[in-house]
Amino acid sequence: MGARVTGDEVRDLLALAEELADKELAPRADDFEARAEFPREVLRTLGKAGLLSLPYPEEHGGGGQPYEVYLQVLEVLARRWLCVAQSVNIHVLACYPVAAHGRPEQRDRLLPALLGGELLGANCLSEPDVGSDIAAIGTTAVLADGEYRVTGTKSFTSHAGHADFYNVFCRTGGPGPTGLSLLVADADVPGLAVAPPERKMGVRSSPTAAVVLDGARVAEDRLVGRPGKGFLIAMGLFDRGRLGIAACAVGLASAALDYAARYARTREQFGRPVAEFQGVGFLLADMSTQISAARALVREAARTLDAGAKPAEVTVAAARAKLFATDTAMRVTTDAVQVLGAYGYVQDHPVERWMREAKLLQIIEGTNQIQRLVISRSL
Amino acid sequence: MGARVTGDEVRDLLALAEELADKELAPRADDFEARAEFPREVLRTLGKAGLLSLPYPEEHGGGGQPYEVYLQVLEVLARRWLCVAQSVNIHVLACYPVAAHGRPEQRDRLLPALLGGELLGANCLSEPDVGSDIAAIGTTAVLADGEYRVTGTKSFTSHAGHADFYNVFCRTGGPGPTGLSLLVADADVPGLAVAPPERKMGVRSSPTAAVVLDGARVAEDRLVGRPGKGFLIAMGLFDRGRLGIAACAVGLASAALDYAARYARTREQFGRPVAEFQGVGFLLADMSTQISAARALVREAARTLDAGAKPAEVTVAAARAKLFATDTAMRVTTDAVQVLGAYGYVQDHPVERWMREAKLLQIIEGTNQIQRLVISRSL
Amino acid sequence: MGARVTGDEVRDLLALAEELADKELAPRADDFEARAEFPREVLRTLGKAGLLSLPYPEEHGGGGQPYEVYLQVLEVLARRWLCVAQSVNIHVLACYPVAAHGRPEQRDRLLPALLGGELLGANCLSEPDVGSDIAAIGTTAVLADGEYRVTGTKSFTSHAGHADFYNVFCRTGGPGPTGLSLLVADADVPGLAVAPPERKMGVRSSPTAAVVLDGARVAEDRLVGRPGKGFLIAMGLFDRGRLGIAACAVGLASAALDYAARYARTREQFGRPVAEFQGVGFLLADMSTQISAARALVREAARTLDAGAKPAEVTVAAARAKLFATDTAMRVTTDAVQVLGAYGYVQDHPVERWMREAKLLQIIEGTNQIQRLVISRSL
Amino acid sequence: MGARVTGDEVRDLLALAEELADKELAPRADDFEARAEFPREVLRTLGKAGLLSLPYPEEHGGGGQPYEVYLQVLEVLARRWLCVAQSVNIHVLACYPVAAHGRPEQRDRLLPALLGGELLGANCLSEPDVGSDIAAIGTTAVLADGEYRVTGTKSFTSHAGHADFYNVFCRTGGPGPTGLSLLVADADVPGLAVAPPERKMGVRSSPTAAVVLDGARVAEDRLVGRPGKGFLIAMGLFDRGRLGIAACAVGLASAALDYAARYARTREQFGRPVAEFQGVGFLLADMSTQISAARALVREAARTLDAGAKPAEVTVAAARAKLFATDTAMRVTTDAVQVLGAYGYVQDHPVERWMREAKLLQIIEGTNQIQRLVISRSL
Repeated sequence: MGARVTGDEVRDLLALAEELADKELAPRADDFEARAEFPREVLRTLGKAGLLSLPYPEEHGGGGQPYEVYLQVLEVLARRWLCVAQSVNIHVLACYPVAAHGRPEQRDRLLPALLGGELLGANCLSEPDVGSDIAAIGTTAVLADGEYRVTGTKSFTSHAGHADFYNVFCRTGGPGPTGLSLLVADADVPGLAVAPPERKMGVRSSPTAAVVLDGARVAEDRLVGRPGKGFLIAMGLFDRGRLGIAACAVGLASAALDYAARYARTREQFGRPVAEFQGVGFLLADMSTQISAARALVREAARTLDAGAKPAEVTVAAARAKLFATDTAMRVTTDAVQVLGAYGYVQDHPVERWMREAKLLQIIEGTNQIQRLVISRSL
Repeated sequence: MGARVTGDEVRDLLALAEELADKELAPRADDFEARAEFPREVLRTLGKAGLLSLPYPEEHGGGGQPYEVYLQVLEVLARRWLCVAQSVNIHVLACYPVAAHGRPEQRDRLLPALLGGELLGANCLSEPDVGSDIAAIGTTAVLADGEYRVTGTKSFTSHAGHADFYNVFCRTGGPGPTGLSLLVADADVPGLAVAPPERKMGVRSSPTAAVVLDGARVAEDRLVGRPGKGFLIAMGLFDRGRLGIAACAVGLASAALDYAARYARTREQFGRPVAEFQGVGFLLADMSTQISAARALVREAARTLDAGAKPAEVTVAAARAKLFATDTAMRVTTDAVQVLGAYGYVQDHPVERWMREAKLLQIIEGTNQIQRLVISRSL
Repeated sequence: MGARVTGDEVRDLLALAEELADKELAPRADDFEARAEFPREVLRTLGKAGLLSLPYPEEHGGGGQPYEVYLQVLEVLARRWLCVAQSVNIHVLACYPVAAHGRPEQRDRLLPALLGGELLGANCLSEPDVGSDIAAIGTTAVLADGEYRVTGTKSFTSHAGHADFYNVFCRTGGPGPTGLSLLVADADVPGLAVAPPERKMGVRSSPTAAVVLDGARVAEDRLVGRPGKGFLIAMGLFDRGRLGIAACAVGLASAALDYAARYARTREQFGRPVAEFQGVGFLLADMSTQISAARALVREAARTLDAGAKPAEVTVAAARAKLFATDTAMRVTTDAVQVLGAYGYVQDHPVERWMREAKLLQIIEGTNQIQRLVISRSL
Repeated sequence: MGARVTGDEVRDLLALAEELADKELAPRADDFEARAEFPREVLRTLGKAGLLSLPYPEEHGGGGQPYEVYLQVLEVLARRWLCVAQSVNIHVLACYPVAAHGRPEQRDRLLPALLGGELLGANCLSEPDVGSDIAAIGTTAVLADGEYRVTGTKSFTSHAGHADFYNVFCRTGGPGPTGLSLLVADADVPGLAVAPPERKMGVRSSPTAAVVLDGARVAEDRLVGRPGKGFLIAMGLFDRGRLGIAACAVGLASAALDYAARYARTREQFGRPVAEFQGVGFLLADMSTQISAARALVREAARTLDAGAKPAEVTVAAARAKLFATDTAMRVTTDAVQVLGAYGYVQDHPVERWMREAKLLQIIEGTNQIQRLVISRSL
């Protein structure tokens, strides 16, 4: 929002991201994913470098970058390790409610820590019976004695068990969207427990688990903005989360294309590099074209947000970017495995992992069916 | 190349294009297409408004616009009538050889007329046995007495029979790409004849025919740049032509989506507007998403050209944009007919025409197979 | 329905169909389509050869063939001229109500003429505001003095203006499916008029028009079976019509593949037949594979019908066959034009016509969206 | 090959397969796959039930079933556990060389054991530098003192380390296809060693490893048929292997569709089962249609083989079936995960495993690019 950055600054920032991605992410990805270990230290390193708070005002400790730039950083990180890029996305989202909807004193009080690079946040939206229909959220928060008692189960929470604070969407009022509010709960509040982690197909280094709130106690002043603003905040979170996932998808797909293209140039069959056969070459060309289109679409969507467009426009632009980029990542990674043939199917090469990771992106931040619903309603 | 235009100027230009499209194109499209009549007067009107020379320097009479802006104008025109947008594309291309590769005195002599808005140009590349492999061009030009005698047949020439000048790619030297040159032949030179027009599936208002050169006489100083530069010029022509077609494809697809979405909101079945059924709504959402991606990709490619990127980069960007945007237009127009059902299949609605028109775009300026070849070689 | 035919008999029948297709259909298709002239005489020739009544009992003058064989004949005809194959499909459908749902005396009285090969029938289902939701049919038939007075407009009726009899679905009872009945109206009954033909994108030789019923008088004994059976009859009609369209789609797609493959083997570019480039070869391979799958699926569906499976099973099998085969035909014909490049886009080759024709198949007998609805409900 | 089986016999056989699949396969699949443990005992059980030798003559201990029936059994098994179905496929293939190309005395001597249900075979084709271009096989076999000394490395060998015998394709003559022969080596011959198993993305219960032949000693009479027949045998193996994989793909895809459809009928969102939303319902309809088409195509291909068609016809039919069915399985399993959303991405449900398994099928027995090559050459 009005962020102004020079070309040089962007170049430097992207170079920094590239360097960290090459040095801190790339060498660890395979092992951490094999062990399903969360790279908490890597995120601390990124935090120290300022990469955990890029799109927030410098006055509160943010990077002062427009989304157009921030998303390029995400793409760079995702090319080396999706888990880490996704964690950056999650934490950046976790700062959004306070940054954008917090009361001035809330911002002053909370933002410096949130944006400081040391803490990690999480967002608690879904519930066992509530996926995309967040107006139906059943977790309740009852105010008594200056604090909320929060009860409910939040499923599929990224960073669960590792986050320092949890944004808990809950019902403080009546049914429907207007009864929803958002509380920022510290990880150690009484009554907040984390279930065992989900065993996911991919992105296994990134912890996902249910968060169980059993009368969890959250101070009254941790309600962001005003009661009843929860739905609106969730909408803003979705828009930004979808843009982040879309950028991650572009990075992941790029990594897969690069790997497949390099393989195809060196692997020979029938006496020639397989890249020279149009059967493979055209497949790579289509992958490349779709990735370029996805990247351009994500960038346009970021510009729409940065330019201060109406929320409805941003929502549709983000939905389109998420839908297109993640479908592209799924197709491209599946085809990248194909280019490597039997070699692509074994863990000696990262492409099989990338294919497993891509599937997550079609699902989180609203399945691609939800994106289509959002888009179709706008037409 | 260094063109600098303000936001206001762009807005005014696009508003002008919209106005002309609505007033001069839209009302005529159906009838002219039904009669396969070339809208020569409409082009004259556009020429007077300056729309036939947008991306050329103002000093020679051009509009001084970057491709990013020019292509938006093309998109606007194509939304109302593809034939006219394509004609603008062809004429703008026809000015490119002299504008970009002409010797200074050639430019000074020829450009003012070419860019003046009154003349119409054509480009003669393909031959009956030579489609995309232009290094194999067989048309010859032999210099004698200060003029070239040109012999050969050029197939599928747009504007044939209506153009004021023809860019004839021909062989002035030995075999292969280095033997090719470009001559700018006036329409009335002796020995240049136009065959009867092709009967096309669509874009029937746009005349396409073979140009037969039987010792056609072209003055020596009509050779653009230097002998042997033909291949290089053709490459530059392809890049720009592909960008133009890509922009046309986006415009055509947008028209189809708008029409289908409007229909779906008003047509009721089973007691509800069909747009409310996800079967139709999701189809429209996918159409919309693909068009947005195509538009963003075309814009990025235009920026690549405008930023003075290396020719190889421009070539790949243009190939991707053309491939993606025209495949999108084919899919979107086919689906638009589907949304209208039986009504889409009859000429009471323009969607069946748009579907026929879209197919052309996958073929011209290099089939999409050629685009994939170009892209795969760059990986 | 228990039809038993020997392998020799089938071979002879298919050979006859091939011969008639080559001799009577192929030479006329281009010209008749260009003129939008209905080939009434060709159908008479097919009728004399027994091809207009194949799947009906021999005792009433039918060919006694199972659908598995009849659909192969349709495929053969559609390879040479879709219009004629579709007419056979329509007439065969037009005989179905009386053949399958007529009272015994109705069958004895009407079937010999219907199956005789001289007459041509039509089916009046859709109405301007009623597409697939036939339970909402608004045309009414009121019984008075031993005859029905039928009032309403039936849109998009194939054979309109050329048929000898019209199967008119109309409302003889209350609202909803149980109020529907079917009347077999002779073409010359008072009050039945035919609107000017629709101007279609393709299959222009096949007349399509609205049938306007303004108190049209139809004898009471022309109500097929009993009042209230209309919906059930329409369902049976849809199943069989969809199978017929599916077989037509396979034939059309095969014709396009054969033509494109032949062209690709003879057309040279870059010094080789284009079929040898994997970019084209793989495209042809995919076309070929999809057609084979479509043909196999249509055959399985026909066997399901022939084996006397439950109506619900037949309905789903027919919906799948129609959906898959017609989507295949659309894709294959679009790609066939692509294989021919610029030559595919002009009327010197039939592939552009086939592409226009394919689109119809995705729409008639229930759009492919309706097929998906039918299938999804069965899961 | 002339096998004649009655409908009752087929029904009984399929019922047996269903029973074994439900009782022996289904309960073990998840655990064994999680542990990557080969279900050797399960295969012994199938062997005792006669399911390891179905398409071979009863006189040698086979089941005397046509491929049409055998492939249905494979499909049934694959619906419960792909690993086991694939093992059956591999063993049945491993019996093919001797059964179809062995000298009469070889058949009499070897077949009873191979078909007995106790032994398990493996096929050694690929080499580190030789994927689909088997004419380039580099493993050599030199005859000396009545035995062959075989040297080379065979990569990606299924059953490696668990098989009782290995069919080793090797070079006994000069370069090219005519120099290839096939030796049936017992697992315990000196000089045959098995490398550590590959870590695959899926089908992890099925062991895959390189087989290293370092002067391995194989008796001269273990050369199947005559020297130089290796290429021909490999071709026959590919045809049958591809049909087997195609049937497995249909089974796997069916399992995924069933699971997804069941989930969609019970999972509610926005107050309704998600299956009732066309966005999900149409997705399921497309999955169902593609599976039906794949199944029909596989069956037609099996009939082609059973009917004794020319090898070239069988080869194309098998390539089409493999290409279509495995592409279908990949798409369907990917979409099945999508239908379950976040639940599909975790190992509580088997769909994520099925998606990982499906990818293998697009790769083995010739990548789908190779299938397209085979098909395109036949056109």
